[in-house]
Amino acid sequence: MTTSYLKLKGHFAQISHFEHFSALGDWDQATMMPMGGSEGRSDAMATLAGHIHGLRTAPWLLDEINNAESEPLTARERANLREMKYQCQQSIAVPQALVEAKTKAAYQCENAWREQRKNNDWSGFKPNLENVMALVREEAGHRAALTGLSPYDTLLDKFEPGMRAATLETTFAGLRSTLPSLIQQILNKQASEPVIQLDGTFDIGAQEKIGRELMTLLGFDFNQGRLDVSSHPFCGGVPGDVRLTTRYREDDFTGALLGIIHETGHARYEQGLPLALRGQPAGLARSMGIHESQSLFFEMQLAASKPFIELITPIINRNLGRDFSADALVNLYTRVKPGLIRVDADEVTYPCHILLRFDAEKALMDGSLTVADLPDFWSAGMQELLGINTDGDYRNGCMQDIHWTLGELGYFPSYTLGAMYAAQLRFAMEKTLGPLEQTIGQGRLAEVFAWLEQHIWSLGSLMDTDSLIKAATGESLNFHYLEQHLRQRYLGE
Amino acid sequence: MTTSYLKLKGHFAQISHFEHFSALGDWDQATMMPMGGSEGRSDAMATLAGHIHGLRTAPWLLDEINNAESEPLTARERANLREMKYQCQQSIAVPQALVEAKTKAAYQCENAWREQRKNNDWSGFKPNLENVMALVREEAGHRAALTGLSPYDTLLDKFEPGMRAATLETTFAGLRSTLPSLIQQILNKQASEPVIQLDGTFDIGAQEKIGRELMTLLGFDFNQGRLDVSSHPFCGGVPGDVRLTTRYREDDFTGALLGIIHETGHARYEQGLPLALRGQPAGLARSMGIHESQSLFFEMQLAASKPFIELITPIINRNLGRDFSADALVNLYTRVKPGLIRVDADEVTYPCHILLRFDAEKALMDGSLTVADLPDFWSAGMQELLGINTDGDYRNGCMQDIHWTLGELGYFPSYTLGAMYAAQLRFAMEKTLGPLEQTIGQGRLAEVFAWLEQHIWSLGSLMDTDSLIKAATGESLNFHYLEQHLRQRYLGE
Repeated sequence: MTTSYLKLKGHFAQISHFEHFSALGDWDQATMMPMGGSEGRSDAMATLAGHIHGLRTAPWLLDEINNAESEPLTARERANLREMKYQCQQSIAVPQALVEAKTKAAYQCENAWREQRKNNDWSGFKPNLENVMALVREEAGHRAALTGLSPYDTLLDKFEPGMRAATLETTFAGLRSTLPSLIQQILNKQASEPVIQLDGTFDIGAQEKIGRELMTLLGFDFNQGRLDVSSHPFCGGVPGDVRLTTRYREDDFTGALLGIIHETGHARYEQGLPLALRGQPAGLARSMGIHESQSLFFEMQLAASKPFIELITPIINRNLGRDFSADALVNLYTRVKPGLIRVDADEVTYPCHILLRFDAEKALMDGSLTVADLPDFWSAGMQELLGINTDGDYRNGCMQDIHWTLGELGYFPSYTLGAMYAAQLRFAMEKTLGPLEQTIGQGRLAEVFAWLEQHIWSLGSLMDTDSLIKAATGESLNFHYLEQHLRQRYLGE
Repeated sequence: MTTSYLKLKGHFAQISHFEHFSALGDWDQATMMPMGGSEGRSDAMATLAGHIHGLRTAPWLLDEINNAESEPLTARERANLREMKYQCQQSIAVPQALVEAKTKAAYQCENAWREQRKNNDWSGFKPNLENVMALVREEAGHRAALTGLSPYDTLLDKFEPGMRAATLETTFAGLRSTLPSLIQQILNKQASEPVIQLDGTFDIGAQEKIGRELMTLLGFDFNQGRLDVSSHPFCGGVPGDVRLTTRYREDDFTGALLGIIHETGHARYEQGLPLALRGQPAGLARSMGIHESQSLFFEMQLAASKPFIELITPIINRNLGRDFSADALVNLYTRVKPGLIRVDADEVTYPCHILLRFDAEKALMDGSLTVADLPDFWSAGMQELLGINTDGDYRNGCMQDIHWTLGELGYFPSYTLGAMYAAQLRFAMEKTLGPLEQTIGQGRLAEVFAWLEQHIWSLGSLMDTDSLIKAATGESLNFHYLEQHLRQRYLGE
């Protein structure tokens, strides 16, 4: 008899149906909704979030989970039950009224931010962000009281279950000590290398066509998803209907295309999650770090490699009516240049942007940094990590990301965890498939996707993150693979 | 003390938040969603519909409404309470499981219909429609048992509260006896009038630009709404974010533009509903007949008039790079021609399409007609009413409309009720503003909208339909105004 388990399964399927609308509302707000719709949307999203929270914290739920634990379940069912319990415990920690207040504040903050960022309007944005931060601190406080973790650790746990700030500090310490000299070495080496300047304009319709061709090349199923435009690129929707976005610039096509490839990595993970577990907790992506490992595998391990660029150069030239050489595009796509914007950063300087945000988040949560002091903290950090002055440039400084507007603190480390996992997965994959560049050059992309599907996508949340990475690569997270990858690609070591 | 009323007000606001997602899901499915998303969407929509139904039938609701009835309420609050009670009673009549089953069947039917209609695939469509019809009959049976009305009357009541089939039969009898000879007279008159043939193609981007200019001319607020494309035009969304759609043909721009004007009438009604009652039952549009009266006022009373066409001819010519004369467009837009498609029909033959559907719906509900016999019934009806043979042409016959795929029986009469209300409103408006054609010709469109806003839009559901029409026009529904309008415009009487 698996009565309790089946009841739980039905309940979590219901939850996923409401989450369907949460995903749709998010996507629509970023891509389609006119400004005048924001008040109605934010009210509706708050009610929906509160309702989902209510379902995840139903009074009978933990008892039923405890009952189900003594039922004769398969290993997959047991994994699903474990994830149900985790979700339930995560939700019980926070009062429903707080969930609703935070959702509403976050949507209002994000919506106003869309205009405020354009206008570099820090004084308009600041009170909204303070409002969101106060609610996030309240949330973290509730979680900390229940779990005994530090407030910031409880936020990390939402995106990267099991990860702690102390572990990150140790892992990131390696990058902190390695990156500055590595960046300098690469800058010195590239100073003498040719790089083309993009001139003229690039038709946005043509860029979109290239994007769709690349998505098809990367196995994206357009019968189960869409490509649209938003001010901050993301991959949303639901596994059967994955919606990714990018943003275009007329004077530079490279960012939009790399963005599309990045989001396609997320999308294939979502489209490749186990169909039999759709709508169940164990059928969800494992963690944000693992999610980013897939997008960064696509963006960095695949797309920034010489043979991949050779593969797509004809597609780019045909649509843009240009005649770029593959070598010129390789140089363009592997150019290292410290800059203001995280999402535009090359893979070498990218972790510096994360170190800054990681430091800021921790300080905002332990109270040693206020929102009012954030711009100065930002300027100092950018100066120290990348030698860049950002004074007064809020829109390209601490107002550039969507995450904090949504109250999503604890997410940023996932990007660099993802880069580390991606490099580690590549070296593991090469044990079976041979050198990745050779596999790409031989047009064997399908084998790469099959490997990722087997070792990551199809496993959903059946294992915890560490077990998943150990099963796929033979060892736990090891930051040296990222360093090895960077030295190999950028210094030829 | 208005404790019970305030509790109810909060509850109905919550319901409106969930209905927000129902509207969003509908719109997205018709405009944006890839085919692969349909299973997940239909599951989610069914759960949502069931949840909304649960909220409308909460066990404590009727008691609380009864308590509130003895509280000291304002007239507006009392009207809101009356509408709450009506919604609640409507919902209690139908078991939640049936609501969910019907929602799911309807979404599957509609989704498959989008392809099946293209392929004239009656045999594929038939079992889906039978499934939906069986569930609609079951629903109507439940409503009939509770209200003592006939099954079909209970369906009419959903869209046109208070309307009965017997009343419609009397009102429609006037049209049934008048229309055939009226159509013949007009056809004879127009036989000798010049009409241009549209030649070449009309760029769809240019058509869309014209559509947006017309929407702006008609006062549509793009900060609170959108225009998109769907296979069946509709006006959806929520009052703060109204989403209308059209469909374009490269060989004929007239239909898309008229469709946009029609939906803009719906949209202005929605955008003009009382802001203070947003999310409350009394803040909703009065009925589908009144809704159609606004879209048909825009489409027929305004847009098909000579001075309006003179106003928009330069917009059309500028965008299409053509040189149509206003007279040629007037003839085009007032050409009467019996045809297969309801939504493409002129205003004179349109009621015949409704009479056919009204007869079919009644027969499908009282059991005298089966889905299997529907195509023959359709052919016979089209032959009798409009002299057209539709044998074997399902896609332009009984498969042309979306309504039945969604299980919405009882809706069609609203279109002709709307045409009658629209004509009646026009003659009433003229008592204050003077002849409508003169008002348009003098560019006083704002006065027309102000009149509609004052007498219809801003009143939401504060009055019942008959009171609303009496207050606006001085008398109850009177079909003679439609006849008078048609004779005036088409026979110059």
